[in-house]
Amino acid sequence: MIIDFETTVQRLRDCDNVQILTHNNPDGDTLGSGFALLHGLRALGKRVCLQTETPVPERYAFLVPDDAMAEFTPQTVISVDVADKALLEKGARAALGDRVDLSIDHHGGNRIFAKETYVDSDAAAVGEIVFLLLTALGVPVTPVIADCLYTACATDTGCFLYSNTTARTHRIAADLIAAGADYVRLNTRLFETKSVGFIRLQQQCLNGMELLAGGALCILTITRAMLHDTGCSEADLDELVGLTRQIEGVRIGVTLKEKPDGGFKISLRTHDDIDAAAVCAKLGGGGHRCAAGCSFNGTRDALLQKLLPVLRDALKEGAAQ
Amino acid sequence: MIIDFETTVQRLRDCDNVQILTHNNPDGDTLGSGFALLHGLRALGKRVCLQTETPVPERYAFLVPDDAMAEFTPQTVISVDVADKALLEKGARAALGDRVDLSIDHHGGNRIFAKETYVDSDAAAVGEIVFLLLTALGVPVTPVIADCLYTACATDTGCFLYSNTTARTHRIAADLIAAGADYVRLNTRLFETKSVGFIRLQQQCLNGMELLAGGALCILTITRAMLHDTGCSEADLDELVGLTRQIEGVRIGVTLKEKPDGGFKISLRTHDDIDAAAVCAKLGGGGHRCAAGCSFNGTRDALLQKLLPVLRDALKEGAAQ
Repeated sequence: MIIDFETTVQRLRDCDNVQILTHNNPDGDTLGSGFALLHGLRALGKRVCLQTETPVPERYAFLVPDDAMAEFTPQTVISVDVADKALLEKGARAALGDRVDLSIDHHGGNRIFAKETYVDSDAAAVGEIVFLLLTALGVPVTPVIADCLYTACATDTGCFLYSNTTARTHRIAADLIAAGADYVRLNTRLFETKSVGFIRLQQQCLNGMELLAGGALCILTITRAMLHDTGCSEADLDELVGLTRQIEGVRIGVTLKEKPDGGFKISLRTHDDIDAAAVCAKLGGGGHRCAAGCSFNGTRDALLQKLLPVLRDALKEGAAQ
Repeated sequence: MIIDFETTVQRLRDCDNVQILTHNNPDGDTLGSGFALLHGLRALGKRVCLQTETPVPERYAFLVPDDAMAEFTPQTVISVDVADKALLEKGARAALGDRVDLSIDHHGGNRIFAKETYVDSDAAAVGEIVFLLLTALGVPVTPVIADCLYTACATDTGCFLYSNTTARTHRIAADLIAAGADYVRLNTRLFETKSVGFIRLQQQCLNGMELLAGGALCILTITRAMLHDTGCSEADLDELVGLTRQIEGVRIGVTLKEKPDGGFKISLRTHDDIDAAAVCAKLGGGGHRCAAGCSFNGTRDALLQKLLPVLRDALKEGAAQ
């Protein structure tokens, strides 16, 4: 069931012994908004835990408080930034996938898998929503909460660069900075620090970059061997995925990420004229208008044979609009 | 003479037949705040002109209105984002350098060359100051003015990334977006568009990148041939120069740019522990603590023979601090 903002505030006021769930391959928004919610509900005297199954990426490790683990039996399960049960971490999906009490999300395409769902698709990040919820609950935004929420908002907007950024995002960023977010240190850590491995991966990606369809199509391929050679992980790939769309003339940026068990995860990035989610839907995936993804089991050649005609059609349709 | 905000508002209210001056090699802040001031003062019924001597860089060409030229004899000369008379464009410096009536600036080190100077060094961009001035003057922030001021604020902060960004910067960005700044298009244009040539140059740079001194020293070399092959110009190199310092473990980032007449321009980037200006001073150059430069006439080998010992000393001294 979809619920409104006020009801969501009421649910948060009434809950206790809360377990917060993030999405798999956790990013700055799911972690930042999750831990902000943890701190906020604890400030209201509640017991709250949040633990991920895979280690939190080093970049976001500072968000995790020492006492984030459960030391109680959860009664209320809340997911943040999770659009679909399938996107929960594996263990959580098996154990709790059918008993999420409240889903707080900003994906317009949320699959409404929880008992109650609050979606604000105008929010650039769930961090925005959690800021508004905590404020409505009367929870003071401490510097620690401000750091969590700034991380959530800044990472999901590429530091206020992406088109999901709104006037409200900037107002909330201002409030978070005023509340003590250590934003200069966070910006350096989140956006201005690159590992040598990442630089080497970027180098290999650029060396293998393909520009097709007269430069309208950019394809980057990232193999397991490249990740292994450079010591990079999935979490390092976002910037490279984004790069495909930044190249002048490129209308669809495609990143093919080889999966551990073979096959590829495909990330599409477009500008406003081409609906990436619609393209990915044709291949069994989904996402947002300008950022979507799908998966393919098979060789790179087989994948391209299936993918390229769909992309060329999308380029034609986009041009015709 | 230094004047305060209220006096500056009064001067703007009283002036007419205004010529606005920008700094040389004009950037997004001097142009954006200059043209915003032009539109704002015109909205108050005044005649205002702003023309640069060198062509406005293509990236900022959209800021220039068709009727920016002078068609009257200027009575009041106002400079924006100009810290020193020496930074005016050549012709303006000769003709008007000693008769600037009002300097509006955000550089703490402004040389106070104008009759009256208003400096707000807390402003990340002069765009912030012009926003506050126009608001105080009761000038409605139209979408055109909002575009100018957003460009000014966003470019001087690297899209709200650099440490000069404050809560006020974000609040003003929010107001500008609410006033109709076409920020999605502007962000794409200003930050997310890389030419294929630039990507190829980056690729070549990374392929030739050297990490020395256990990864504490990163050296990029950019030859004339690389610029020629990729169609890039000097103006494209800032991002690559900045990249050297972003690599984890690198304490001195060095970019060697081959000069048209042979020899090299050397750009140094450091973190706080090493004084780049002091290092460059040993080679006849200078600059800021974390960003400095010098020049060398001779081959790359001869340059490295001279440069590397100085850099190794600096690493040792930095480590000893």
